[in-house]
Order: sequence, then C-alpha cells, then structure tokens
Amino acid sequence: MSMLGDQSVAPHSLEKEAMAAQPKPQNRPVSNIVIIVAMQTEALPVVNRIQLTQDFHSSFPQGVPWVRYHGTYKDLNINLIWAGKDPALGTAGGFKAKGASIGDIFIVSDCAFHDRRIPIPDFDLYGVGSRKAFETPNLIKELNLKVAKLSTGDSFDMTQEDESLINANDATVVDMEGAAIAYVADLLKVPAIFVKAVTNTIDGEFGNKPSAEEFLQNLAAVTAELALAVEQIINFVKGKYISEL
Amino acid sequence: MSMLGDQSVAPHSLEKEAMAAQPKPQNRPVSNIVIIVAMQTEALPVVNRIQLTQDFHSSFPQGVPWVRYHGTYKDLNINLIWAGKDPALGTAGGFKAKGASIGDIFIVSDCAFHDRRIPIPDFDLYGVGSRKAFETPNLIKELNLKVAKLSTGDSFDMTQEDESLINANDATVVDMEGAAIAYVADLLKVPAIFVKAVTNTIDGEFGNKPSAEEFLQNLAAVTAELALAVEQIINFVKGKYISEL
Repeated sequence: MSMLGDQSVAPHSLEKEAMAAQPKPQNRPVSNIVIIVAMQTEALPVVNRIQLTQDFHSSFPQGVPWVRYHGTYKDLNINLIWAGKDPALGTAGGFKAKGASIGDIFIVSDCAFHDRRIPIPDFDLYGVGSRKAFETPNLIKELNLKVAKLSTGDSFDMTQEDESLINANDATVVDMEGAAIAYVADLLKVPAIFVKAVTNTIDGEFGNKPSAEEFLQNLAAVTAELALAVEQIINFVKGKYISEL
Repeated sequence: MSMLGDQSVAPHSLEKEAMAAQPKPQNRPVSNIVIIVAMQTEALPVVNRIQLTQDFHSSFPQGVPWVRYHGTYKDLNINLIWAGKDPALGTAGGFKAKGASIGDIFIVSDCAFHDRRIPIPDFDLYGVGSRKAFETPNLIKELNLKVAKLSTGDSFDMTQEDESLINANDATVVDMEGAAIAYVADLLKVPAIFVKAVTNTIDGEFGNKPSAEEFLQNLAAVTAELALAVEQIINFVKGKYISEL
C-alpha cells in the first residue's frame, strides 16, 4: 500500500484495475496518473506506447517485487506499478451471454468478490466487498467504451460456488485483483478507474469454465489493445478536472 | 506492508500469524517482537495481559484501519498490530481427525493456500504458495506445544474443492490470513512464528464444515488462552538469540 503514499496529494489517480472513493473537489485539472497492472505482459505495451522509464531506485520496502515505471506524457506525471516478478493473472475473463467478446475493453461500474464466503452477520457483507466504481460518464461516451460489473476471485478456474456468487454480483467480467485494489483505493480515498480487456470467455467454446489455453493464446494481442485504450484514456484525461471525467 | 517498515532493523519478529524466512545471523538476543492479529477479540486479551498502550498517532497511511498497540515488557520492545475496524476472522478451525480439539494451541510448521487455484504452469505453484515456517524446536519443547500444518483461504465455509486442497496441504488447522502473512514475511525476510488457537472443529459435531455458531461460542475463552500462550512465548523468547528458539 505504501506505493500509493506519494500519490496522496495527487488530484486523480487512474488505475488500470482500481476503483473510486469520494474524491475531494479539485481546483486544477488532473496532473498525476497511477496505472496498476498485475503482469509484465500488460505493463510493457503501455510502457512502450507512452515511453516510460524503469525506476531502479524505487522507495518500495526492500524485498518487495514491485516494479515502477515513470515518465511525463503530455504534461501528465505518469507512474505505472507492475506487481513484480511473481506471476499474477490480470486482464479479465468475460461472459459471452452478457455481451463480452475477446478483445473487448470494459470500464467497470461495480466491483465485488466471489470467493470470500463468510456466513456470519456483518462479516458476510465485508466478504463480498461490493463497491461502486468512480463514475466517468464522459470518458465512456467519448471513447465509446463498454461498461460492466466486475467480480474478483483468487482462482483462475470457476467452481459451482464461484459461479453462483459471480451471478449474484451480476458480473460480466471476472478478474483476480480488481475488488482488492478497489478496497485499498476506497480506504485511501483515491478515485480510480478500472479498464479491463477480455482475454478469454467463461461461457464460450471451452465449456462453462475459463480456459488457460484461450487466455494464453489471446494475451499478447489483447494487451496491445489494452495499451492503446490506456493511451486514449490518458489523452482524454489530460487537461480535465476530475469532475469532467 | 509498510507496517513492517520500521521493523526492518529488528533482529526478530514474532507474529501471531506469520512465517519465517532465512533470518540473518544476529549478534544479540531478540529485542523486538511484532504481533499481528486479525480481530479485536484476539488483540485485547494480549494487550491487557502484557499492558500495551494504543498508539493514536501511528505512521500508517491516512485511511487505513490498522491499529497499533505498543509497550515494553521485560525489556522487550513489543508492537501489536490489529488489522483494524474491518471484520476479519482469525484464530483457526481444526480437524479432529488430525488431533485438533477446541482450545488447542498450535505452532505452525508449514503454510499454504487452498483457494488460489491457477491451473497454468508456474502460476499453479504460486497459487498454492507453500512455505516452511521458521523453526522453533526449543520453544515447542519447552512449552509443550502441538505442531501442525496450516492452510489458508478467504472463506469461512468449506467447498468440496477447498476440502480437497486442504487435504493436499496436509493441514490440521485452517485460517483466513496465515499464508498471506507468510508471503509478506518471506518477501521482507522477517522470521516469524504462527500461534494458532482452535475455536471450532471442521469435522466435528456440526458436520463436515466449519460452524459459525461454534466459532462464536468459543471465541472469548479461546482468545484468553491464546493471550496466555503469547505471554509464555514472549517470556521464552526474552534474552534468547534467534538461533536458540
């Protein structure tokens, strides 16, 4: 979490997978953007596209695997944090039945978990961790992006219990980190936007489960599209107040 | 993770639920102990027993719910971090068939996750996150403590898939945070000890599943026993080198 520390004065933070809290009113346009990605495969297309430089002397605690890329792009101060050398799955699986196709880019409206089942009063709601995302109606309209609800879990496959809770969350896209980043963004009151690109279908030709084969097949092409979308979003954000997004 | 930042110079860190990495050889006895707990119900008996004071001006990032208690106990610098106002389940469920009874105190020998299924080469092992705990043979012998393997998951209940992976992890006790703290302790190379007290059985009279009723019934009594065990462990650690534990 300390990685967000030096962003506390930032008027806005765009996170590839993160969510919004109540932002303070700002008297100047957005000047800082933080992009959080799970995988190097997601990071590099963005790093190359907007020409970021790796920081070899970051202030992260010694031992943590996080990698920081940074730079200035059209007067915006950009930081990209990649969760590091440990493998982690990013991007998203999507439900065809709800309108998701491979390569689709979604902006997330709502986040929740589907694998934190705690059937004890109060604990149950904490487990689901449902949160509204920061709203960006103008961004969505201008870039003609799809909007969907996101459900997050720690497994790539999907059990019957997972499926039933993904349905309860009314999710079109499924990932492995979004709702956790949403929780932290909420704690720190950092407005954030989730941009999810679909690498694999869940209810597609591979049966009613996510396919690792399909995921790996589409990863390179889809992350290239994602980098393009991130660049378009940065271009849209530039010069705007947070209330104009 | 920043909560461990000011502990980086500590020669040893005792965490109620955390694990060991390769500690550097130390030329002095243990002087710092950090205790990490999930619930206030677990924190307060320890706080009262060893007379810790709440820190109202902690250096945690603004917005995070972590609460720090601190103090000196028999010349040892003690910090207790409670994960804060958000509900979280601590303590542990235990398998009767493997020798666990309500109120038993276990020292953990191995940690792993049972709900991070990622059936993709390399990612699969990362998901299970199996780690050996820091070994404390003298502590275990002196205090006559039981030793067990721990399996961690984000749900209080247990699906068929969970059960099968808990078995694969050969776990006697099950909790909701241990392996995650183990991962961080490993990254930061902080040796740590897990002390798990059994609040509920998994294969007991409530059928083959954890019982919230049993958990809530036993919580107060078991956390009092846990606080006593923590005090005994601190007394044992006092004046010893880390290699003597």
